[in-house]
Amino acid sequence: MEKKIITISREFGSGGRTIGRLIAEKLDIPFYDKELVEQIALESGFATSYVEENGEHAPGKSVFSYAFAHQIVPGAATGITTADFLWNVQCSVIMQLAEKGPCVIVGRNADYILKDRKDCFHVFVHADKEFRADRIVRLYGESEKSPATRLNEKDKRRRVNYQHYTGRKWGEAQNYDICLNSSTLGVEKCADIVLSIISDSK
Amino acid sequence: MEKKIITISREFGSGGRTIGRLIAEKLDIPFYDKELVEQIALESGFATSYVEENGEHAPGKSVFSYAFAHQIVPGAATGITTADFLWNVQCSVIMQLAEKGPCVIVGRNADYILKDRKDCFHVFVHADKEFRADRIVRLYGESEKSPATRLNEKDKRRRVNYQHYTGRKWGEAQNYDICLNSSTLGVEKCADIVLSIISDSK
Repeated sequence: MEKKIITISREFGSGGRTIGRLIAEKLDIPFYDKELVEQIALESGFATSYVEENGEHAPGKSVFSYAFAHQIVPGAATGITTADFLWNVQCSVIMQLAEKGPCVIVGRNADYILKDRKDCFHVFVHADKEFRADRIVRLYGESEKSPATRLNEKDKRRRVNYQHYTGRKWGEAQNYDICLNSSTLGVEKCADIVLSIISDSK
Repeated sequence: MEKKIITISREFGSGGRTIGRLIAEKLDIPFYDKELVEQIALESGFATSYVEENGEHAPGKSVFSYAFAHQIVPGAATGITTADFLWNVQCSVIMQLAEKGPCVIVGRNADYILKDRKDCFHVFVHADKEFRADRIVRLYGESEKSPATRLNEKDKRRRVNYQHYTGRKWGEAQNYDICLNSSTLGVEKCADIVLSIISDSK
């Protein structure tokens, strides 16, 4: 079956985002990374007009409508945390993006959110720590924390978040169509491999 | 760096062995699967001449020489289990096979045993259960047990064995250069992807 939507999950510093961008450019399809998804969530789900129109519902009618009524501070009134609320919104946004047509989505557990769509291709990118440490310093600069600490903190956050919301183990090969080690394969080769698969699926 | 030795770890029924054979044929290099590695272990390490020559050592001199003296029943005399003994022999055999030159090795935790060689390329092949169930019935025939039970039992055995001897988690993407889902990619495409990477590394 033709694979139209490519999700890319990645270890911090592995180059997954760059690989996603290369693939999207080559296929000439939209590229959604973390920030863009968040922006769309804000622009769509949290739009002022929507809040105004749907905001005054009684608690219990729906998590969304009630949350909107409380202007993005749903925890206090509904008992769900802001993180859970954001997760719900992101699920909805990512499903809507996938409905729109071919695209590349990086991060945000999109592999899990879109797991039931047959037209998706799920990629996981990882790399050894030296490669990633070197890359984050080159791309994002030095910081007070050592590169190793930054990697560990971010990896842990992504792992815990993934496990919490999906019930799956982060980095388990069985959750993906392909897992690529960008430190041994090279970032460009990773993109080429995925492009060759997508091209074959047409 | 040129990748000369390809190790293939695989879920039962995923077609990893076929993929390995296709790669070896195309590259015209030896193909070692589980049975062959075991046979070589028996024919080399346990050779009668070697046992005769080195067999009469006191316990403690070396696990190998003492074990050989006891004709492959080392557990009774040395305290190590037959499984542990076989593991030691297989580590040695696999390292010797890798020393000999380019090859494809399927199974036997070769990814871990050869993890420190820079000229190795480590592949993990997995597939969804329906694909694997269908494949094992087609290849190995029906049995008293359901295909699902056969898959679960074999998967569990490989997982436990891998974890016991390597301290790693079975199927964790980070242990491999590439992980391939043969049920979505197709067996031939998996072989093609690996061949393209090996060819690029030259």
